[in-house]
Amino acid sequence: MDKLGRQTWAFTSEPRLLATGTVAGKVEAEGPLGANFDVTVDDSSQGQSWEKAEQKLFASAAQTALVKAHKQASEIDLMVGSDLNAQLTSFYFGLRDFAIPALGVYSACSSITEGLALAGLAIDSQVANHVMVGTSSHNATAERQFRYPTEYGAQKPPTAQRTVTGSGVAILGREGGNVAVTHATIGQVVDYGITSPWEYGAAMAPAAARTIVAHLRETGRSLNDYDCVATGDLGRFGHAILLDLLAQDGLTVDTELTDCGILIFRQDQPEVFAGGSGAACSALVTFGYFLRNLEQGLWKRVLVAATGALLSTITAEQTESIPAISHAIALERKDG
Amino acid sequence: MDKLGRQTWAFTSEPRLLATGTVAGKVEAEGPLGANFDVTVDDSSQGQSWEKAEQKLFASAAQTALVKAHKQASEIDLMVGSDLNAQLTSFYFGLRDFAIPALGVYSACSSITEGLALAGLAIDSQVANHVMVGTSSHNATAERQFRYPTEYGAQKPPTAQRTVTGSGVAILGREGGNVAVTHATIGQVVDYGITSPWEYGAAMAPAAARTIVAHLRETGRSLNDYDCVATGDLGRFGHAILLDLLAQDGLTVDTELTDCGILIFRQDQPEVFAGGSGAACSALVTFGYFLRNLEQGLWKRVLVAATGALLSTITAEQTESIPAISHAIALERKDG
Repeated sequence: MDKLGRQTWAFTSEPRLLATGTVAGKVEAEGPLGANFDVTVDDSSQGQSWEKAEQKLFASAAQTALVKAHKQASEIDLMVGSDLNAQLTSFYFGLRDFAIPALGVYSACSSITEGLALAGLAIDSQVANHVMVGTSSHNATAERQFRYPTEYGAQKPPTAQRTVTGSGVAILGREGGNVAVTHATIGQVVDYGITSPWEYGAAMAPAAARTIVAHLRETGRSLNDYDCVATGDLGRFGHAILLDLLAQDGLTVDTELTDCGILIFRQDQPEVFAGGSGAACSALVTFGYFLRNLEQGLWKRVLVAATGALLSTITAEQTESIPAISHAIALERKDG
Repeated sequence: MDKLGRQTWAFTSEPRLLATGTVAGKVEAEGPLGANFDVTVDDSSQGQSWEKAEQKLFASAAQTALVKAHKQASEIDLMVGSDLNAQLTSFYFGLRDFAIPALGVYSACSSITEGLALAGLAIDSQVANHVMVGTSSHNATAERQFRYPTEYGAQKPPTAQRTVTGSGVAILGREGGNVAVTHATIGQVVDYGITSPWEYGAAMAPAAARTIVAHLRETGRSLNDYDCVATGDLGRFGHAILLDLLAQDGLTVDTELTDCGILIFRQDQPEVFAGGSGAACSALVTFGYFLRNLEQGLWKRVLVAATGALLSTITAEQTESIPAISHAIALERKDG
């Protein structure tokens, strides 16, 4: 393990991504990456409460990852997970039957990279041989919690984003697979004073810019060292702000700089507005798309800077601003 | 770093607790440990929203720990924190001005030991030199979120517990101080089917028993190897259940087996019912009391198995059971 600067961890043992499980809702399955997901669920309520449905998505993604990794739950030393529901109930309730030592984390939609950072740390430092890490989100549980129940039919501005329904889970190990988690850059809380829950992209773009800049400075890399640099869920408006902020930092962007929230939906899909969001957004795009490009040798390196808006229902009602955070993970194809 | 069994991490570099900051509310300050806390706040609302007040408690504890450690925030590589508010707003909002790389964690009232486990891991694996770890809770924010706003004056049964108002923050480093974090045992989610939000102690006791038993098995230690073994916030009823469960596992208890929720209040204080609870409960008792006994050489070793009830408002309304988790931390006095 190496500490690079103040924020970046370099995993010298290069923990491998052994297998992933991806479960996507109907709208996500109809998006451009739909064919990449392991499981798609047509009726995302599944005849129960939305919260229960989300727990099942998470359990299904975890089960799929275990099957693909040829592992039993008893072989997993640690699971690290998160979701957007208050008190992480989708993670804790959804995975309680797996009987695996569990660490709940929360950094909103940056939780998947927070989880991957801790999974990498646990393997690299040899306190775990196999770690399961994942997140879920559900459009209806998020709408009810952070905005309005979907049944209200509230109108939304074009800067709104659609919370992704789905779950992405990965199993990391010491050996196996040809993609490694090589670095994690831990983000700081950044608050630019945005207060509108329809402007998450604007609230999160500064956090993404800071983390990307810190990652490049501390690793001595440039954007061109990556085949793809992706933020989590800034959406189209937040992405444009990010480009401005990186330009202010003197970064010329001639690599593929994109955003998981933009990639997961086609712009002409109904009600996706500025793009996807939610704790599952970066997880699905990373495990279902980036990882495949790495595994197939199309890409050598990817930097994923997932982004989280750290508001709660109560802080929004109390007209507080929306702090944000972004944790970044570098993935690299290894030959052998 | 050593991995002992499936759940226990042994920190070979023995990260030290350099300093702590403890801030307590009025009722906590009037309790038997009141004289141990660094700061007590008389009016816990401080003329603002309860949520804002809790954020200030957290910031005050963090600032106190920095002052006592003779550190600037810029010297801290990482902060790991949690609170009971949805989306960890006390941690993220309260500490946003410190500009330290931040990892939010959540395991309810076991969050302080989850945080200490990750802080120990980060230092032992050399990705951080100094880590700040802490939690807060506030009686009024917790009552409003999990039960009823205090203004309703709802009646409570004797098994109810009083959420502690306060915050405990520690700064860990590689050298300095004479108390080390030597082990962490990561808990699994345990669900015994309890559904009443007035029975947290009963819901959490099985999780505590499992983690304590796993810790002893994996370290090869007995209860007698500790001067004190403390659960987090089982309260008096949960503590009695724990004793039964440990006896079923064949453990004879002749060491001091206690509970932070019992220690923090006198039984005759008004409205404390079965004892304290809340994410700050174990933090205040560990940093304000256990640590002093270790520092002063009265004790050699303490095991703190903080306990978390993993319900949310929504799961409670949906009549779900209350899963629980307990992460344990071993602290040891070092001479020099």
